[in-house]
Amino acid sequence: MEPGPPGSSRPTEPGPCLSSQQGADQAASASLQSAAGAQPGRHSLAVAAVLPAGGCGERMGVPTPKQFCPILERPLISYTLQALERVYWIKDIVVAVTGENMEVMKSIIQKYQHKRISLVEAGVTRHRSIFNGLKALAEDQLNCKLSKPEIVIVHDAVRPFVEEDTLLKVVTAAKKHGAAGAIRPLVSTVISPSADGCLDHSLERARHRASEMPQAFLFDVIYEAYQQCSDYDLEFGTECLQLALKYCCTKAKLVEGSPDLWKVTYKRDLYAVESIIKEKISQEICVVTDIEEDNKYVSHLLEEVLKSELNHVKVTSEALCHAGRDLQQIILDQCYNFVCVNVMTSDFQETQKLLSMLEESNLSILYPVVVVSVHFLDFKLVPPSQKMESLMLIREFAKEVKKRNIWLCGLLISYPQAEIQPWGWAICDSVCEDSDLDGRVTE
Amino acid sequence: MEPGPPGSSRPTEPGPCLSSQQGADQAASASLQSAAGAQPGRHSLAVAAVLPAGGCGERMGVPTPKQFCPILERPLISYTLQALERVYWIKDIVVAVTGENMEVMKSIIQKYQHKRISLVEAGVTRHRSIFNGLKALAEDQLNCKLSKPEIVIVHDAVRPFVEEDTLLKVVTAAKKHGAAGAIRPLVSTVISPSADGCLDHSLERARHRASEMPQAFLFDVIYEAYQQCSDYDLEFGTECLQLALKYCCTKAKLVEGSPDLWKVTYKRDLYAVESIIKEKISQEICVVTDIEEDNKYVSHLLEEVLKSELNHVKVTSEALCHAGRDLQQIILDQCYNFVCVNVMTSDFQETQKLLSMLEESNLSILYPVVVVSVHFLDFKLVPPSQKMESLMLIREFAKEVKKRNIWLCGLLISYPQAEIQPWGWAICDSVCEDSDLDGRVTE
Repeated sequence: MEPGPPGSSRPTEPGPCLSSQQGADQAASASLQSAAGAQPGRHSLAVAAVLPAGGCGERMGVPTPKQFCPILERPLISYTLQALERVYWIKDIVVAVTGENMEVMKSIIQKYQHKRISLVEAGVTRHRSIFNGLKALAEDQLNCKLSKPEIVIVHDAVRPFVEEDTLLKVVTAAKKHGAAGAIRPLVSTVISPSADGCLDHSLERARHRASEMPQAFLFDVIYEAYQQCSDYDLEFGTECLQLALKYCCTKAKLVEGSPDLWKVTYKRDLYAVESIIKEKISQEICVVTDIEEDNKYVSHLLEEVLKSELNHVKVTSEALCHAGRDLQQIILDQCYNFVCVNVMTSDFQETQKLLSMLEESNLSILYPVVVVSVHFLDFKLVPPSQKMESLMLIREFAKEVKKRNIWLCGLLISYPQAEIQPWGWAICDSVCEDSDLDGRVTE
Repeated sequence: MEPGPPGSSRPTEPGPCLSSQQGADQAASASLQSAAGAQPGRHSLAVAAVLPAGGCGERMGVPTPKQFCPILERPLISYTLQALERVYWIKDIVVAVTGENMEVMKSIIQKYQHKRISLVEAGVTRHRSIFNGLKALAEDQLNCKLSKPEIVIVHDAVRPFVEEDTLLKVVTAAKKHGAAGAIRPLVSTVISPSADGCLDHSLERARHRASEMPQAFLFDVIYEAYQQCSDYDLEFGTECLQLALKYCCTKAKLVEGSPDLWKVTYKRDLYAVESIIKEKISQEICVVTDIEEDNKYVSHLLEEVLKSELNHVKVTSEALCHAGRDLQQIILDQCYNFVCVNVMTSDFQETQKLLSMLEESNLSILYPVVVVSVHFLDFKLVPPSQKMESLMLIREFAKEVKKRNIWLCGLLISYPQAEIQPWGWAICDSVCEDSDLDGRVTE
């Protein structure tokens, strides 16, 4: 999952480029290549997505429906919306929510600046919610801004880790076969109980699969299936692919998906989501400094130490000068962790410059941004009371920027007139400790 | 899951007390009642457990087999062993590990003081591993210390959250039916692919279940089944209940289990386990102080503040005096979080007393213990340099006790001569921040 808006793909055409003459695999590959720029002679597809989000999440055991449970203070559904809207060729995303959650949903869309989202009312069952979403896309609504897509994706609000290539595969397969869906191997053996609560028979695990999301359909196929669907199926059915099979004789193509496509169902799944997200946004650290000679030496040293200690993390360093051009690029590429080095000063000018840049960039809207503000103070020159004051000042700053989802942490290093290399390790220790995004002031 | 050794159950008889005249439900209830003491006229069962632990965990995507992956620095399998050995009526636990992991397993048993564990060599498949475990119990081994049980439990090393009542239910049902196993509702629809990778049919989710662990069998039934078992089934089979059905015509009783019985399979599951464990050991905080009048007032205030802020946490307070008798009980009842209050002193006598008691108790062998050492210092009386020294001293202490899995955190509060209630909130904030078991020194 790549957090944030798409890095390399630029919207040129509104749909993925698929040639109907080629096989599905070749088309998928060609589409991935053509994502970077339009290729002539290919037809583009109109694709929309429907997200049933009307469940109450009773298996979770908490009062908040799971799709609204916060992860790093942001509702789960927002991560799913982000994953879909960064796929430029998904033109509309229709979300079905219950009436009582409609306002909450609108405020989520506004706060996290989601785009291309339309809301419809959920039904009492998942199938009914999806049906309402399809109706909104069917263009038989008065004054409806949505246009009918050729392919519609169905995806759950509680599956936040859906990648573009998986979406492209199911869409490509749906174009060819009429329907397609992601599948995963079974983790447990599936059994069939008899009426007396005993084992009747067990299924061969290798011959079955778990049906997951995303799924995709030719719009006309799935809309027809829902229109023909019995009340019983609308009430008790759990499988859209089954509807396409039963009512339109369409056999869905099955596409292998990644483990991260699982559905958040239990409380433990929220913990897992949080950990996966934290891991993703801990991939890069940027060491920032002003251009003074001492600073450059220190930050270079620090960069080397961090690289050797955190070998799974990408470490870069940038200067705050030159209108921060390079730094702007780092921010655009979604680095969420910064170490700002200040030598021989306990003031915060450099850190404040960095914080201003971060606030302007909106980087912290979707994920928390961590800034470790490092200050080297000569032991003999700076009295302890001034150090205390500095610590207090950092704490005040931290409270302020926390409101904007920036986690500021101050590190004051008092050193005698000696080698400063050991302090690189001290910073490194602190950065490692802070890698669980803790905004505490440390000494 | 209750961490630590059993609190209230005392081993009087080696097996659960089941009366063969009663129905399974009544027997289970009677057994739970009799767990506290033997009841006359009831027969006890010899029960052993077999744990296949020979897998390589390839779906995890990390080189360490999942059962040996650390959670809070302790291998996953150790938590499962703990869950089983605290059930006093499981007489033997036979673990099957690969030859190359035999030494690692022995050191885990020694380090975490596991009891009643026997090791056998794993086979190349799960069924073969279980078969090896059963052979060790069958009493046809020379010089074997294990005795043949009447009931054998089969459970996975990677399912750490198994409760005694679930074990009792499957054992009781196995006694009556010959075989029994835990089941869970399906979370995803199960489908059957055709040879061309398309959907052939989907299964009705409500009519099927996921087969989980623990399972239990009359030893003679399952041992016979394995001895009759074809090579094909030993190689490719995934379901012990199926073997009992196929080779012994024994229809297993199915017992509904809790969500926490799931099998750790993917990396995200490790995160989930860690979070569940952390939640369990964060249920209680004990405020500890010496008997000085000021201290008692402060600790009482603190106790009130903590109770109101952390309303899901049990807060108690104890005195360090009287040879800490009451404190000993708190430790025995497995409280893992302590706040030690020192007023008007920056030394560590009280904290050191507490730390000694904790070290003698072995409480931190299985789970990390958190101690927040709080010191109130009068702003005017104590110079900043002394405060710095105090901080450094705490840090040295913390490094030392960390080796024994105790996370020491120091909190120095400088106050003017005023109400100390606000500082209760400051401590509370720190304790809340520390609730993710962070041993950092804070100011």
